[in-house]
Amino acid sequence: MAYRTTALRIDRDQALRTRILACALQRVASGGFTALTMQALAEDVGIATGSLYRHFRSKGELAAEVFSLASQREVDALGEILRGPGEPLERLQLGLQRFAERAWHSRQLAFALIAEPVEPEVDERRLRYREAYAALFAELLEAGNRLGQFQVAQVNLIAACLVGAIAEALVGPLSPQARAAREAGQPALSLSQVSQSLITFCLRAVGAPLPQKEEPQP
Amino acid sequence: MAYRTTALRIDRDQALRTRILACALQRVASGGFTALTMQALAEDVGIATGSLYRHFRSKGELAAEVFSLASQREVDALGEILRGPGEPLERLQLGLQRFAERAWHSRQLAFALIAEPVEPEVDERRLRYREAYAALFAELLEAGNRLGQFQVAQVNLIAACLVGAIAEALVGPLSPQARAAREAGQPALSLSQVSQSLITFCLRAVGAPLPQKEEPQP
Repeated sequence: MAYRTTALRIDRDQALRTRILACALQRVASGGFTALTMQALAEDVGIATGSLYRHFRSKGELAAEVFSLASQREVDALGEILRGPGEPLERLQLGLQRFAERAWHSRQLAFALIAEPVEPEVDERRLRYREAYAALFAELLEAGNRLGQFQVAQVNLIAACLVGAIAEALVGPLSPQARAAREAGQPALSLSQVSQSLITFCLRAVGAPLPQKEEPQP
Repeated sequence: MAYRTTALRIDRDQALRTRILACALQRVASGGFTALTMQALAEDVGIATGSLYRHFRSKGELAAEVFSLASQREVDALGEILRGPGEPLERLQLGLQRFAERAWHSRQLAFALIAEPVEPEVDERRLRYREAYAALFAELLEAGNRLGQFQVAQVNLIAACLVGAIAEALVGPLSPQARAAREAGQPALSLSQVSQSLITFCLRAVGAPLPQKEEPQP
């Protein structure tokens, strides 16, 4: 009996932890990491703030877990494309396009993941996830090099450059300032402008041929 | 007399603040932001920890000031080259090379500025300084576009891509892990490999012709 009681408690604890993380992700997706306070979250979940601290020792630890949960989804989604069917060149284009689309459709969350100022625990995870993205690009660059589609000497370094370029390209368009400007009726870049420019930038950077129709006009 | 006493006190306060920041920068340059604790810093400066808090309300505020002090120097150094004499194409190459060199020669500081996990106040400044770098690149891209040296459609977006690529290219080589690997005798990229790859990446990305000798071999 003691064993079954313990197993049951562990299951319940795990279920509650999963529910806390889901509520926390919801908060970050709608208001960024600033909206993730222990008190508001405890209310969302319907538990006491003290119980929340039994699952996550600090706001930083919780934020880091939410970050990983959301980032892993993005890495998986990108990985499916970059490691999927098709030539490396097509996979790179499609991967960039989908990554920008996903960010565009959850702007607040994407900005939170990429650039929102936040606890050092999250910065730590950012470094780790950027390495995970870079590993996917490195694999793709190797494949493209072998086929002569890309001309990249230092694969790992250039994979990191791609990750940095993609993240930084999105920071501006996703930022709260851009949102305010858009809402004030000021001109803003469209998703297709951003994704097109990013694709052109990355293809050129790795020495890939540009699709004819996408030749940019300065 | 009251006026002179007050003026004297302000001067002294300002001098002490400057000295605190100089000591703090020294700490970050040799041990990163983790080495910047209020207590250790107060000892370096030779004042009580309480006095330190009269100048900087928190570790985050102090770290942000140190960050800005060091970053402004980098922005100024890069700006001198990017806005200096020569063709835009040459200025871009030289700017990238010098930026990488400066980082290489103060690795710990460069890693701290670019990527060390740290208080949100510093993340906030990182965003601002990345905009300052991007503004310099945007100006250069405009100039290069006009001369037909670069082929960039969305100047501001691509300027941000360059900033992201440069920062991310350096994170790996400057990281504490890379240092540990180097010290353990594992193979590591040299400054010239990093700076050459970065130059090739950026020149191609903006549609600039590559110098013949620098054509990369996959």
